[in-house]
Amino acid sequence: MSELKNDRYLRALLGQPVDQTPVWVMRQAGRYLPEYREIREKAGDFMTLCSTPDLACEVTLQPLHRYDLDAAIIFSDILTIPDAMGLGLHFVPGEGPKFKNIIRSAADIAKLGVPDMEDNLRYVMDAIRITRREINGKVPLIGFSGSPWTLACYMVEGGPSKDFAKVKGMMFDAPLQMHALLDILAKSVIAYLNAQIAAGAQSIMLFDTWGGTLGQSNYQQFSLSYMQQILAGLTRENDGRVVPVTLFTKGGGQWLEMMADTGADAVGLDWTTDIGSARQRIGDKVTLQGNMDPCVLYASPDRVEQEVANVLAGFGEGKTGHVFNLGHGIHPTIAPENMTRLVDSVHRLSERYHK
Amino acid sequence: MSELKNDRYLRALLGQPVDQTPVWVMRQAGRYLPEYREIREKAGDFMTLCSTPDLACEVTLQPLHRYDLDAAIIFSDILTIPDAMGLGLHFVPGEGPKFKNIIRSAADIAKLGVPDMEDNLRYVMDAIRITRREINGKVPLIGFSGSPWTLACYMVEGGPSKDFAKVKGMMFDAPLQMHALLDILAKSVIAYLNAQIAAGAQSIMLFDTWGGTLGQSNYQQFSLSYMQQILAGLTRENDGRVVPVTLFTKGGGQWLEMMADTGADAVGLDWTTDIGSARQRIGDKVTLQGNMDPCVLYASPDRVEQEVANVLAGFGEGKTGHVFNLGHGIHPTIAPENMTRLVDSVHRLSERYHK
Repeated sequence: MSELKNDRYLRALLGQPVDQTPVWVMRQAGRYLPEYREIREKAGDFMTLCSTPDLACEVTLQPLHRYDLDAAIIFSDILTIPDAMGLGLHFVPGEGPKFKNIIRSAADIAKLGVPDMEDNLRYVMDAIRITRREINGKVPLIGFSGSPWTLACYMVEGGPSKDFAKVKGMMFDAPLQMHALLDILAKSVIAYLNAQIAAGAQSIMLFDTWGGTLGQSNYQQFSLSYMQQILAGLTRENDGRVVPVTLFTKGGGQWLEMMADTGADAVGLDWTTDIGSARQRIGDKVTLQGNMDPCVLYASPDRVEQEVANVLAGFGEGKTGHVFNLGHGIHPTIAPENMTRLVDSVHRLSERYHK
Repeated sequence: MSELKNDRYLRALLGQPVDQTPVWVMRQAGRYLPEYREIREKAGDFMTLCSTPDLACEVTLQPLHRYDLDAAIIFSDILTIPDAMGLGLHFVPGEGPKFKNIIRSAADIAKLGVPDMEDNLRYVMDAIRITRREINGKVPLIGFSGSPWTLACYMVEGGPSKDFAKVKGMMFDAPLQMHALLDILAKSVIAYLNAQIAAGAQSIMLFDTWGGTLGQSNYQQFSLSYMQQILAGLTRENDGRVVPVTLFTKGGGQWLEMMADTGADAVGLDWTTDIGSARQRIGDKVTLQGNMDPCVLYASPDRVEQEVANVLAGFGEGKTGHVFNLGHGIHPTIAPENMTRLVDSVHRLSERYHK
């Protein structure tokens, strides 16, 4: 493997000194980029794009050609695991992801097994291997997975949901059944992320998109405890370097202390959390990732720069351990030029905090 | 006016002793009730139901016939104010509320004025007057309004939104323009709620449905400060009794201290906040309303009772100042029988906390 030329992102995740605050953006390879839309159209459908390693690699690298980002994240989907379990993932235009086979009963759950990583999910590992080669040490490559609770939401609802009626109905009425589902998912996520690390992923993101829809005690029991299991099961080393793990629960601002106690190296913040307060609460334990409101990118470039300054000042002086990001994925309709301003401002304005 | 026979709800809001914890449920008059769906169908459309005082009264009273609730809330919509400002509210089946005239520019805002309460909004006051007569002192009647920020979201987006692109774009790019819009809305909400109190509303709810989509500093500037203005502008007295005000920001669990400092009598909690922690944080200052996950009602009646017990135990012993509610509006597809169990369990199980 070629030597890593820019390790700001990995260093910041481990709380080591950096010259500038590293920056990457959730969904940085995506629909707001015209070159992404072009290749997406050529591929025909979203799953073809995910499951063709050369295309996934190309899309992963697109934002690096435009922007001076400090990390790449492998282009894939959080629902690859349930798909490999035989649920039949497909995408309905305007409705998002759907499963052909939905999980509703103990019998449905009993049929599920940990998927074979180098069989049904080989396309993800191949994409990582190819991307590591093509990226040529420019920046680190991030692997990722959805959290067990988040995957369970889609598997039980059969697609996106507003009210989470079925999955929460199962959780409240049949908690043991829900735990059986989450247990097999946690085992699968451990195998999946370890395979990604073995294939070359240099850092891991765990996306708990729907943990924030739970009450505190249910969050602990049904989402956080499984992420903690995952953290304990990962081989967090590769090429002689630590593979840091970032845990992100959208809407988890009330539970930062618990998230910081899982053993994660970093905690992702959505934009509703004040980053200064978050640093006071958990910043001595973990690195913080975040957390500009993605909607700032609808404003003018000058306003984008001003908000970047606010987030950097909010994190403040005298400590490393900040990875700049949005508080959630970048929206598909923002102007790509605003991202240029975002990335450049983070680097330029953060220098004074690292002297 | 007839004497109030059950004042548990008003007493709990003011932190006074009660024999049982009072309970009401957001959207308790609504689609989960077959008798509601029947009258809704007869009325033809939702706005006819809201704007015909006799029908609004009938629907308001429906849940009281079924359940032993401690309060009624006038049946209406949060978007009556923008409608009375001339925005042309209508409901598109499957898409929710829409406005014919959308607010996008300083010129659009300059045209807006505080609506005449006894002209364009007389139907709301009439519904309150009729309901107060028909309810005959059984329980208190709650009036309500959306918060200025929440109303602005609908007025600028033109309807429901997932990403709040336009309204946040305006907030970030043209904050003074946004403040002008929020200022006229705050003045309108003050006039509207004072008219509701004069017409007979015995308690007020301020619904800040979308405040939780903001970052902390923007929440303070663009949502909370206007709710504070409203609290300062209300005539909080009627029939010689205090008219208590409850402030509810969905997703506001990180900002409870600020909400408790506005001068509100009570703060509503959504289900993501632990009610025990909330009591430690602000329970000496205000009454807490909430906060069972509405999805518990998809489970069995026994499970509903168990969760009621959890919420009551979470609030705990030795202090009054709890109004039981869900953490958000009741869903349209739950079984009405589960509400019977909810209401009865709250009364039965809470007695021991009030001895």
